[in-house]
Amino acid sequence: MNPDIIKERQNATFDVEKLTYVLDGGLEKTKRRREIESMVFSDPDFEEEDPNFLSRSERYDQAVRKSAQMILKLREYGIADPEEIYCYKTMVQGNHHEAMGLHFVMFLPTLYSQCDPQQSKKWLPLAKSFQAVGTYAQTEMGHGTHLRGLETTATYDPATQEFVLNSPTISSIKWWPGGLGKTSNHAIVLAQLYTQGNCHGLHAFIVPIRDMSTHVPLPGIVVGDIGPKFGFNEVDNGFLKLENVRIPRENMLMKYAKVEPDGTYVKPPSAKLTYGTMVFIRSLIVGESARALSKSCTIAIRYSSVRHQSEIRPGEPEPQILDYQTQQYKLFPLLATAYAFSFVGQYMKETYHRISGDINDGDFSELPELHALSAGLKAFTTWTTNSGIEVCRMSCGGHGYSRSSALPDIYVEFTPTCTYEGENTVMMLQTARHLVKSYRQAKAGQQLSGIVSYLNEAKQHRVQPQPVAARPTVVDINDLASLVEVYKQRAAILVELAAKSIQQEIQNRKSQEDAWNNSSIDLVRASDAHCHYVVVKLFTDKLGEIGDIAIHSVLSTLALLYALHGITTNSGDFLQAGLLNVPQVHQVSVRIKELLSQLRPNAVALVDAFDHHDKKLNSVLGRYDGNVYEHMFEWARRSPLNATEVHESFHKYLKPLRSKL
Amino acid sequence: MNPDIIKERQNATFDVEKLTYVLDGGLEKTKRRREIESMVFSDPDFEEEDPNFLSRSERYDQAVRKSAQMILKLREYGIADPEEIYCYKTMVQGNHHEAMGLHFVMFLPTLYSQCDPQQSKKWLPLAKSFQAVGTYAQTEMGHGTHLRGLETTATYDPATQEFVLNSPTISSIKWWPGGLGKTSNHAIVLAQLYTQGNCHGLHAFIVPIRDMSTHVPLPGIVVGDIGPKFGFNEVDNGFLKLENVRIPRENMLMKYAKVEPDGTYVKPPSAKLTYGTMVFIRSLIVGESARALSKSCTIAIRYSSVRHQSEIRPGEPEPQILDYQTQQYKLFPLLATAYAFSFVGQYMKETYHRISGDINDGDFSELPELHALSAGLKAFTTWTTNSGIEVCRMSCGGHGYSRSSALPDIYVEFTPTCTYEGENTVMMLQTARHLVKSYRQAKAGQQLSGIVSYLNEAKQHRVQPQPVAARPTVVDINDLASLVEVYKQRAAILVELAAKSIQQEIQNRKSQEDAWNNSSIDLVRASDAHCHYVVVKLFTDKLGEIGDIAIHSVLSTLALLYALHGITTNSGDFLQAGLLNVPQVHQVSVRIKELLSQLRPNAVALVDAFDHHDKKLNSVLGRYDGNVYEHMFEWARRSPLNATEVHESFHKYLKPLRSKL
Repeated sequence: MNPDIIKERQNATFDVEKLTYVLDGGLEKTKRRREIESMVFSDPDFEEEDPNFLSRSERYDQAVRKSAQMILKLREYGIADPEEIYCYKTMVQGNHHEAMGLHFVMFLPTLYSQCDPQQSKKWLPLAKSFQAVGTYAQTEMGHGTHLRGLETTATYDPATQEFVLNSPTISSIKWWPGGLGKTSNHAIVLAQLYTQGNCHGLHAFIVPIRDMSTHVPLPGIVVGDIGPKFGFNEVDNGFLKLENVRIPRENMLMKYAKVEPDGTYVKPPSAKLTYGTMVFIRSLIVGESARALSKSCTIAIRYSSVRHQSEIRPGEPEPQILDYQTQQYKLFPLLATAYAFSFVGQYMKETYHRISGDINDGDFSELPELHALSAGLKAFTTWTTNSGIEVCRMSCGGHGYSRSSALPDIYVEFTPTCTYEGENTVMMLQTARHLVKSYRQAKAGQQLSGIVSYLNEAKQHRVQPQPVAARPTVVDINDLASLVEVYKQRAAILVELAAKSIQQEIQNRKSQEDAWNNSSIDLVRASDAHCHYVVVKLFTDKLGEIGDIAIHSVLSTLALLYALHGITTNSGDFLQAGLLNVPQVHQVSVRIKELLSQLRPNAVALVDAFDHHDKKLNSVLGRYDGNVYEHMFEWARRSPLNATEVHESFHKYLKPLRSKL
Repeated sequence: MNPDIIKERQNATFDVEKLTYVLDGGLEKTKRRREIESMVFSDPDFEEEDPNFLSRSERYDQAVRKSAQMILKLREYGIADPEEIYCYKTMVQGNHHEAMGLHFVMFLPTLYSQCDPQQSKKWLPLAKSFQAVGTYAQTEMGHGTHLRGLETTATYDPATQEFVLNSPTISSIKWWPGGLGKTSNHAIVLAQLYTQGNCHGLHAFIVPIRDMSTHVPLPGIVVGDIGPKFGFNEVDNGFLKLENVRIPRENMLMKYAKVEPDGTYVKPPSAKLTYGTMVFIRSLIVGESARALSKSCTIAIRYSSVRHQSEIRPGEPEPQILDYQTQQYKLFPLLATAYAFSFVGQYMKETYHRISGDINDGDFSELPELHALSAGLKAFTTWTTNSGIEVCRMSCGGHGYSRSSALPDIYVEFTPTCTYEGENTVMMLQTARHLVKSYRQAKAGQQLSGIVSYLNEAKQHRVQPQPVAARPTVVDINDLASLVEVYKQRAAILVELAAKSIQQEIQNRKSQEDAWNNSSIDLVRASDAHCHYVVVKLFTDKLGEIGDIAIHSVLSTLALLYALHGITTNSGDFLQAGLLNVPQVHQVSVRIKELLSQLRPNAVALVDAFDHHDKKLNSVLGRYDGNVYEHMFEWARRSPLNATEVHESFHKYLKPLRSKL
């Protein structure tokens, strides 16, 4: 164990283990998580070569092997609870992804939810025994977030009682679905349904794409891998071009909508259920943000405690880089953010579970708010985490750029969350739509409930924000409740500003739609402020649940840092709205420096509490024992370029070059 | 040609070709650049496979082949002017790097500048004929920016008249030098010189590391590749462990310092010359920032003009995504930044050339200012570009994540500039040191000249910034000269604030050094404001040189957008300092929206003017003809995973899995 990191742990003012229970949701959960972890990490069947040393094809190969292995192990251990499966999968994957992810996350759940009884009887056994390995083919080369724009067609032919599927243009080729390129032999294809000369919009069809025994693509199917990406190199995201592919009528998923044998179309009763799945997945992503950011902070903070560089006082030994104020200013606000997002993730999961009971009982009343919240928080947390990972990486100097640090992997595997399951700007605008609607309802005298209820108070605000010094400010910058209030008012003012911008545009003879587009910068800003308020509020609320005094104290410091840091980085908003005055903003900067010093002795303990196993982090910089350099050397020596002393290029190019000069 | 992109070009209000001349520095320069480009792009010897389809070893192999090829071609065409070589190399490299880069950039120049006459006679012919292929080994595993901390030792043994080189610890292993792992047979090693029992600090030694004919590592040399990285996978960044390696006394570079045969150490006369090289390289990096950002903008803006998605007005066809205000708000400020940095790059190059004449004449008077400016601007431009590339990538939706977009490559090859040649935070603090020193001189009554001369006016400012509404503001937000003034005053106030923070800390009984560290957040902020001012000023100055009315008009709009966008993102600073009042900040937001609309018709023409050849961009999204989808499909089909219809993993894992369930 590195002596620096031992000393860091001795300096901690709280019990790390107890904080881990808080993060996991209780002692029992921590225990079970560790049991599952040790099943994976002590299992020789999951030992592997660092994917960074492999070619793309080898990486894919290793990922398929691990997925197959995992399926067997889950059965063997009898792990069936979805949360435990999720935990097991996370351990197996490490910093990478799984080749068969979409079979579990989309193919099976869609069969469960959209098959009629007869279809269930046929397809579920095939899918559960992996005779049918499937994916979900929605996105096309030319169409993503906007589903109505999808071009793939499924035309019903009553003569043969078949659907004929086609990709009528290049831009209609299915593009991106995970596991589509090489792994799957079936795909659930989203296509515009045509029957009896009419288009009935998007419907889902089970399309066999490869022969179930030879795995060779079927006639009319042009399928393959879409090529290397920034990350996700374990996954064969694929393309699928359909050329007059015929499937039986029964392959349309018919739980809701139907096509009768003669071609008569039968409408679905309601569409609200699919709504719930999106909310669920976006809520999960909030948790993923917390995980990615806490991993990155663990690596950067542990490394900063063992790395010595430059000098603060001449003649003295080089200090730990964690002693530099600039390093603390990079990392501690992100550490606070990782904690904030962990608690927000917990809240979203609990709320979803609470509400999904209501949904099953047919009560959708809370869904719109949760839908809006999950969209905005998905965008807010992934954007913050995305840039935060890179700050952590660059705070490690050159070594952060080495794949041995794991930070490049964490980044490239995380960054797609900003785009998938709803592009972030679109998500922010969805939340804004809910906020503006709520604002108008409040203005019309309706009493709002839930998180947006603060818009009830909006009537008191002025359109034109007041001069900064004019408003009396009673904010105590050391009091979290007071800061929550300030964030709330900022959100209220920015929602009002966006709504007024739309109004202004309409007064300038713009259509409703153009007015919306011409106000979208303000709308995104309003959503962002709303989400920021929610995060500060949930972090503060969480403190009320913490009984342990030492833990309560350190988490309060983190929450305060989170809130005050958000104020300095957005100080213009708070000044413009007259919520803080100039001396207060200056005090905030001074206070932040004090908080950094205050957190310094607990920094390593705070990342230890995330309890990321060394095998999960897979980072030479982030090792629990702090023995960075020897393991970096050992890792480098395993680099494939070191397999031979002399690379063949010397004989091929360098030696001949000399004779030509 | 895609019809959308044709229409975009028809809408332009200026002559694209003429703007290209402005960016290149004149018609003649554009002509010559294109000549060199066509030499490379029409040369079948440089045709290559997309490196993204290759394994690491194949990538390295291809890079060595191209480097060897390039050396022959440069001789063949008689290209010897350093700027033309730089241009040629840039074309050959594309979005990647060169295996033998350090031989040209560091090994040869160091031999030229630090060999005594006898050494020159021996080493230059060897290096120029590539008998000796070399690199520059400075950074160690445990030591980067802080050179005095390097641990490698070179101990003189008068008995044999040799130096004995050692890596005494693991952290002293040389780590990161490009070309060290496999390519080079020599390295210039920086080591602590010991002779007659005394340490004389860092000196440079020529160390043979591989046998010149067999390329096998020499005794006592442990050398290899440091393993895969985020990017730079063409380059064999290497490690070097020295175990009692003996080299003759004559292998110490002796132009300045010397060791006599008996071990007597002779001091160098002055160290100021090496100072100049750093300034030069950092100035070059400013130009690299402009290039990387302009490439990214070219890709994102062209793609946004052919990509259609969602709807603004219901029932109408999907609009070009460039019509969304949020998309314009992401991309146009970055476009303006790319122009700003191009002109700053020009200025830095010109200034360096102007001053280096003085330096050769022994006049170092302007060097400290240029040194401080190049450090800060290197950090300012690389940080901005680094996050800007990612904004461009994510603005392309999912396809930005594909390697076919080239944006991942541009990012990973660019991001090390934030760390190498001086870590950015350290750079910002170097600039801050100059600013605080200048501020103190000004306060002491000394009249400053050059860019920092605005600190002469600092006396008028107050320590405590005034309440926002109190100061009379006469800023015209549409007048660039007025905005330059506002940026200047912001910089002055933030420099003063940082200086006062140091003073305050010292009054609280902190040592000078701790006071500095405890003020470093403020110091970085001051440097940032200073650089921001310089960029706004240089962009504005440049407009004065533009004669063409149409070009002057569009560049003025860009400059205004750059300046106003910087105000909104830092509005707290301007409000806090009382430089703008609340209604003005609100007006700035409104004005920015107008500027976005105003730039919209010229967006594609403005990126066309950067004149990045399709082969240089190597991006399916950024193609000049806008034919994105067909080429994406074609590219994907060449992916190595598509070489076989059925991947072997099916037979190895998936099929067997079924029988086990």
